[in-house]
Amino acid sequence: MSDALLLRNGRPMGGPARDILIRGGRIAAIAENLSAPDATVEDLAGALVLPGLVEAHAHLDKSLWGMGWRPNDAGPRLIDKVDNERMLKRAINIDPARQSARQVVLSVGHGTTHIRSHVDVDTEIGLWGIEGVAATREAYADIVDIEIVAFPQSGLLRRPGTLELMDQAMREGATVVGGIDPCSMDRDPKGHLDAVFALAQKYGRPIDIHLHEPGEMGAFSFDLIFERTRALGMHGQVVVSHAFCLGHPDRDLVDPMIEQLVELDIGIMSTGPAGRPAPPLKRLLQAGIRMCSGSDGIRDTWGPYGNADMLERVMFLGLRNGLRRDDEVELAFGVCTTGGASVMRLQDYGLQVGARADLLAVPGETITHAAVSRPLRSLVVKHGRVVARDGACLRASP
Amino acid sequence: MSDALLLRNGRPMGGPARDILIRGGRIAAIAENLSAPDATVEDLAGALVLPGLVEAHAHLDKSLWGMGWRPNDAGPRLIDKVDNERMLKRAINIDPARQSARQVVLSVGHGTTHIRSHVDVDTEIGLWGIEGVAATREAYADIVDIEIVAFPQSGLLRRPGTLELMDQAMREGATVVGGIDPCSMDRDPKGHLDAVFALAQKYGRPIDIHLHEPGEMGAFSFDLIFERTRALGMHGQVVVSHAFCLGHPDRDLVDPMIEQLVELDIGIMSTGPAGRPAPPLKRLLQAGIRMCSGSDGIRDTWGPYGNADMLERVMFLGLRNGLRRDDEVELAFGVCTTGGASVMRLQDYGLQVGARADLLAVPGETITHAAVSRPLRSLVVKHGRVVARDGACLRASP
Repeated sequence: MSDALLLRNGRPMGGPARDILIRGGRIAAIAENLSAPDATVEDLAGALVLPGLVEAHAHLDKSLWGMGWRPNDAGPRLIDKVDNERMLKRAINIDPARQSARQVVLSVGHGTTHIRSHVDVDTEIGLWGIEGVAATREAYADIVDIEIVAFPQSGLLRRPGTLELMDQAMREGATVVGGIDPCSMDRDPKGHLDAVFALAQKYGRPIDIHLHEPGEMGAFSFDLIFERTRALGMHGQVVVSHAFCLGHPDRDLVDPMIEQLVELDIGIMSTGPAGRPAPPLKRLLQAGIRMCSGSDGIRDTWGPYGNADMLERVMFLGLRNGLRRDDEVELAFGVCTTGGASVMRLQDYGLQVGARADLLAVPGETITHAAVSRPLRSLVVKHGRVVARDGACLRASP
Repeated sequence: MSDALLLRNGRPMGGPARDILIRGGRIAAIAENLSAPDATVEDLAGALVLPGLVEAHAHLDKSLWGMGWRPNDAGPRLIDKVDNERMLKRAINIDPARQSARQVVLSVGHGTTHIRSHVDVDTEIGLWGIEGVAATREAYADIVDIEIVAFPQSGLLRRPGTLELMDQAMREGATVVGGIDPCSMDRDPKGHLDAVFALAQKYGRPIDIHLHEPGEMGAFSFDLIFERTRALGMHGQVVVSHAFCLGHPDRDLVDPMIEQLVELDIGIMSTGPAGRPAPPLKRLLQAGIRMCSGSDGIRDTWGPYGNADMLERVMFLGLRNGLRRDDEVELAFGVCTTGGASVMRLQDYGLQVGARADLLAVPGETITHAAVSRPLRSLVVKHGRVVARDGACLRASP
């Protein structure tokens, strides 16, 4: 039987109606009135057709989705939340395999086709998270591509044994080395970053560091990251997530950082946080910096928010960055699609002939209209096959 | 025929299941296993029951909802947007009667039972807005209560003739006097505020002033507002909307303002803006300040965002103010319900016996769960009658 799929009457990127023919998991043709007698036909009824959404910063291992509502009463400090989570994981069995599968099903229903997930590695749970998400990566490979970042959520040095577990994680499923707040978490920025970069060098893998540190402290950590990226020639292989300090109002602090981000081709991930300083999206894009976005944690022990909808994320980025004009909102959409693809170095991503057929259809007159309305996705296609319909993934959730 | 309505198996505020009996438009009883043979019965199937949402800052006259998507290409300055809108109103016929009716239908579908709407008054459109929204207020009085603020969007003094129109608006439908950015809009803060307070005194009406002015300029405008409120004995009759300057990080600037807000019982409206400094919700509530919230403009010539969902607004307030614990998110819910009611001085508002039966039912385990999930409202009741079901208002939209 043919694997051909013919999407009729869709509007790529909100343009005029076109048919899209998919063969062998790739886009074979985009034109009017295509004919393919062997193809399964889907009528998109004038819906927008968009490239698959890229969730470039998730925590698939730790959502409480589907576990019943658990009121949050964690303390106010970062370390309260870190400790609260590590304590609860075993206590209430936040099983990374099950929870990551649930979030994948949710994400795919929203049109996400690629996910980069940070996954906790610590001395309490060892590689439970890595193994669980790796199992989901394999079990759900037909509906989503998952990239795993080994993430020292509880610090790399302050809990002895973590570094060895991180090393093991890089051999058993993780393909990116994570880090977190070199000053404020481990209280040893040199030690933390030396360890992170050494692991990346040892396994020839890229880096993605959580950097929540504000203002001058964040700028100092950035400086140490720049230094190592430059010295090791890791241009284009480092991402800094959150990077709140880039939202500092002092241009004399921020502008030199932007220059070095450009020089070293360091990518920046921003969720468009409403309550924290945020990297200035337009300025970074104008400078040519690769930007991506993500849901971060959704409904976990850290907080109740989130639904893994990357089209809603476009709205959050827009609201945070004061994007009101349609051409501005489309910049945020780019961050959640091609931006994520460039950070994750996806091959043949996009909505053009020859590209992998990872795409979605959604009602809406324009991209901005869809982003602010966030309607149910009509259809989601991954590897050239329909994987979700009317907002619901066709694969069941555990 | 009896007007009694019996809501079975709802969970008021997320507590245990109860029946709610409504008679004569008021809550007659809340208890287990109520019996009322004459009542129409609705089974809420364990849904949360919440007091009606209070939309305390809308612009009913200016949404483009239902007019087809209009790409936004307005200039970057406030005055660009003001001028762009005034120019477009007649040009594309943003009919205030029709558009306010559409937004009312949308709002009621989301469970809003009370709306305070600012309505533009200017020399271009005269009282077109006031007349239109007043017509909607009357035509839809069975499904929502609307309060109209005469709002000098284009300035009070800089376009001669506006003040006379504002005076006329107070005789022909408006019940609150509006104002906007005394320094930056009219560039005559004394003149602007003297005129606003004089109108309020003349008609014995309260005041609601848009204050976007940041930092020290906003603090100066606040100072002039405090001075007049105190001198005229208008304690408890003034609201300041947006009040971005209260989000300034300098406590030496902000704390004295908070003291005077308490002294003069001035209410504060915040939408929880992601991209601007915002009044610190927890600190203001802890000080005892009445706070309310609103959608502000939705899908208008200013920008594409918004859907008039005040449960989603709870989420925005939570995200903006870093509210993660359930008890914190419930503070934001209070702002969108009882807070709005206290600012609008609603009589007999709430979810207790004797109160007006203005309420909604929504799926969810707790208030926070509902706020972050934003599911379709199961049922909305206004004046004791069902006005929306499964997310859709029972009254048609024009």
